[in-house]
Amino acid sequence: MQVTIKQLAEQLVASYKQLGGINHLDGKPLPSKRAIANITEDLLRLLFPGFFDERPVRISSIQADTEALLGSVAARLEAEIAKSLEYGPPEGLPARDIKSYARTVTVEFLGQLPRIRELLQTDTEAAYNSDPAALSREEVLLAYPSIECVAVQRLAHELYKRHVPLIPRIMTEWAHSRTGMDLHPGAKIGSHFFVDHCTGTVVGETAEIGNHVKLYQGVGLVARSISDAEKLRGKKRHPTIEDRVTIYAGATIVGGETVVGAGSTIGANVFLMHSVPPNSLVLAENVRVRVLNKKDREKKTGPSEGL
Amino acid sequence: MQVTIKQLAEQLVASYKQLGGINHLDGKPLPSKRAIANITEDLLRLLFPGFFDERPVRISSIQADTEALLGSVAARLEAEIAKSLEYGPPEGLPARDIKSYARTVTVEFLGQLPRIRELLQTDTEAAYNSDPAALSREEVLLAYPSIECVAVQRLAHELYKRHVPLIPRIMTEWAHSRTGMDLHPGAKIGSHFFVDHCTGTVVGETAEIGNHVKLYQGVGLVARSISDAEKLRGKKRHPTIEDRVTIYAGATIVGGETVVGAGSTIGANVFLMHSVPPNSLVLAENVRVRVLNKKDREKKTGPSEGL
Amino acid sequence: MQVTIKQLAEQLVASYKQLGGINHLDGKPLPSKRAIANITEDLLRLLFPGFFDERPVRISSIQADTEALLGSVAARLEAEIAKSLEYGPPEGLPARDIKSYARTVTVEFLGQLPRIRELLQTDTEAAYNSDPAALSREEVLLAYPSIECVAVQRLAHELYKRHVPLIPRIMTEWAHSRTGMDLHPGAKIGSHFFVDHCTGTVVGETAEIGNHVKLYQGVGLVARSISDAEKLRGKKRHPTIEDRVTIYAGATIVGGETVVGAGSTIGANVFLMHSVPPNSLVLAENVRVRVLNKKDREKKTGPSEGL
Repeated sequence: MQVTIKQLAEQLVASYKQLGGINHLDGKPLPSKRAIANITEDLLRLLFPGFFDERPVRISSIQADTEALLGSVAARLEAEIAKSLEYGPPEGLPARDIKSYARTVTVEFLGQLPRIRELLQTDTEAAYNSDPAALSREEVLLAYPSIECVAVQRLAHELYKRHVPLIPRIMTEWAHSRTGMDLHPGAKIGSHFFVDHCTGTVVGETAEIGNHVKLYQGVGLVARSISDAEKLRGKKRHPTIEDRVTIYAGATIVGGETVVGAGSTIGANVFLMHSVPPNSLVLAENVRVRVLNKKDREKKTGPSEGL
Repeated sequence: MQVTIKQLAEQLVASYKQLGGINHLDGKPLPSKRAIANITEDLLRLLFPGFFDERPVRISSIQADTEALLGSVAARLEAEIAKSLEYGPPEGLPARDIKSYARTVTVEFLGQLPRIRELLQTDTEAAYNSDPAALSREEVLLAYPSIECVAVQRLAHELYKRHVPLIPRIMTEWAHSRTGMDLHPGAKIGSHFFVDHCTGTVVGETAEIGNHVKLYQGVGLVARSISDAEKLRGKKRHPTIEDRVTIYAGATIVGGETVVGAGSTIGANVFLMHSVPPNSLVLAENVRVRVLNKKDREKKTGPSEGL
Repeated sequence: MQVTIKQLAEQLVASYKQLGGINHLDGKPLPSKRAIANITEDLLRLLFPGFFDERPVRISSIQADTEALLGSVAARLEAEIAKSLEYGPPEGLPARDIKSYARTVTVEFLGQLPRIRELLQTDTEAAYNSDPAALSREEVLLAYPSIECVAVQRLAHELYKRHVPLIPRIMTEWAHSRTGMDLHPGAKIGSHFFVDHCTGTVVGETAEIGNHVKLYQGVGLVARSISDAEKLRGKKRHPTIEDRVTIYAGATIVGGETVVGAGSTIGANVFLMHSVPPNSLVLAENVRVRVLNKKDREKKTGPSEGL
């Protein structure tokens, strides 16, 4: 076997040397998925003290505990941000300024945590107020995927705004894997945001979402079809959802110029490609169904499961 | 950096003291998500001996091994149940009785494991019998998300029935994260239950499902829209599915008074808001599609991806 | 409590002895889910050097590093394949040949890694070229679920073709759990394959997919309804998708004889049960929606959320 392994390794190494794009050899190190996952978990701990660890958080030691965790997160995050900026420096940033910019971004980012907590407080209220199955705010935080996924998007969005490449998407993809909901870090999301069940909901990079918006599972805020990705990079491609809009399960809203006016309700499975004025009620025409009796039908056509 | 970290920590601690609802400081400890995840994994080990560990289970040592694992689970679960009851005691339970009620619930719950195994045996049969891609019952247990997710729901349901707060939802949300299927612990689910592919399927708190029911991915057994969550807490809001019903992918059944009669088949993507009698075949009217030739169309309207 | 635990364990062990199918006692050990997960992660490391670990891969030590990892994977995989073949030997393989067949399959499988890397290179290109939100090939590899899920399917397919039971499905189910996409190891998938967002997409065992195919979230390539799973095992039940086809979110293509001709575009939410010729544009008839004004409507019918 030993000889074979040597040969197999030689073939594989030959393929590493030949194929570009899916290798990362001898380059500057990329940000590490595992490191980002650990940092993200610690950021959630800082946002929601007492919800992640078995021992209770004590007021008496909270300043010291917070300082210790924050210090650890700051050091690790700064290192990952520096790797990420080395890989893809923002336009106009000279190579010699990367290390100091990484520190600036890290401090600015951590300074946003109190403001992000205020937003997440409104999200928790929104979840509690709109789901009759939720019995307490603690249940929302311990057992609703929406809060975790939205918290990660709100964190990632702050790095996205500061032109940090790779890390924001690694963070939201970590949350996507855990919750089934794909919120792009570029999306602008207002206060009191809640998504029930989450699985399959997709919010694109240039979507804008107002305050008090509620989505259900399988909702898409997506782009029109794309003939040439290169031309569209950076353009507004995803819809704008104004305040107090509810969008039911499986509805899809398409296109960068589509605006759903404030106070509107979009029914389940609606496919909407144009704007609607405030206070609209948009219903799919396709909710009608035919109800047949299986036995009558079998007499005529023979047995069938009739998918 | 050290000075900055101190200041950032002060800001964050100020926000902990100010904002309610997303802190949990100096309170009685909440049940731990991580502890519940570990307990749930061990419960799956007890339900399906020999499927989770690398070394085979020996008949000769099985009584001793089971006793050891059961003892460990019992101690940890009792502690988490006690925390959960301290947090939200059931109506009429005096504070001094919480510890003894936690023990009673733990023993009753573990006493249900043999009955739950009988149900899961029927679920495994149902999966094997209805999926032609399944080559053996072992494959169903090792590689089908349905069984794992349904097993966790059946466990959580026993705690839900005994008015344990938080833990049942933490358990089903753990399974949701792993399988993409959101089965509420409150749902009543009969024998021989199978969901193919699982991702996106949602079953609400007050749904009732008979025996020999089969669902596919993306099925919703959901509530009507909700104007006021508070009024609806505890009411029957989700549909009843009688015996031998099959519901194909993407179908949504809505409302607490909606009953799908025994032996019915609900087609893919059906959106059903009213009851149907036994042996119904319900088809979406919207399965018709237009098939155009791209070249003909481009002649008339210019190039288009035509989403 | 000790006495109770003993009794509970006795009840549980009695149930182990009584119920078949969900026990695995004293049998030959099954392949371990955990071992397969670890092997799969190491295979991803071998496919994409430098993307999974924090320290950069050095050209100077890459032959030695690859040999070491490959040797470790080979030993563990051979052991799991042997267990899997003991459990379900391919037709015509005598029991005495299982060990040598396990080694042959392992070596053949690892010899496919360079070819699989060539295919994944095309998948990465396809992702980068078709998503305007992707800023680099490194971002595709670090933050797009499609590549990971497709990589695992391409690996599992090589074991599936060599009649190894259980392991291929455990591998793809591992990827399903992480990405929400359920690609069966039996599916034949061409080059330049990309699925955007992934969640809810299902590709069945006998599906065939050409080159340059792009899918979105929630797409199903599925079988017709099944009256009798036993009769259909091994038959072609899932559709054929020819080259350069794009299938938008939520579309479902049904049946083993259904062929989507080369260069076609299938619109969102289409439900297609028959073949279409090359260069077709298939649109759902149901994209029309009614837009009502909530206030006008309330005057007539009273307040309603109007789901």
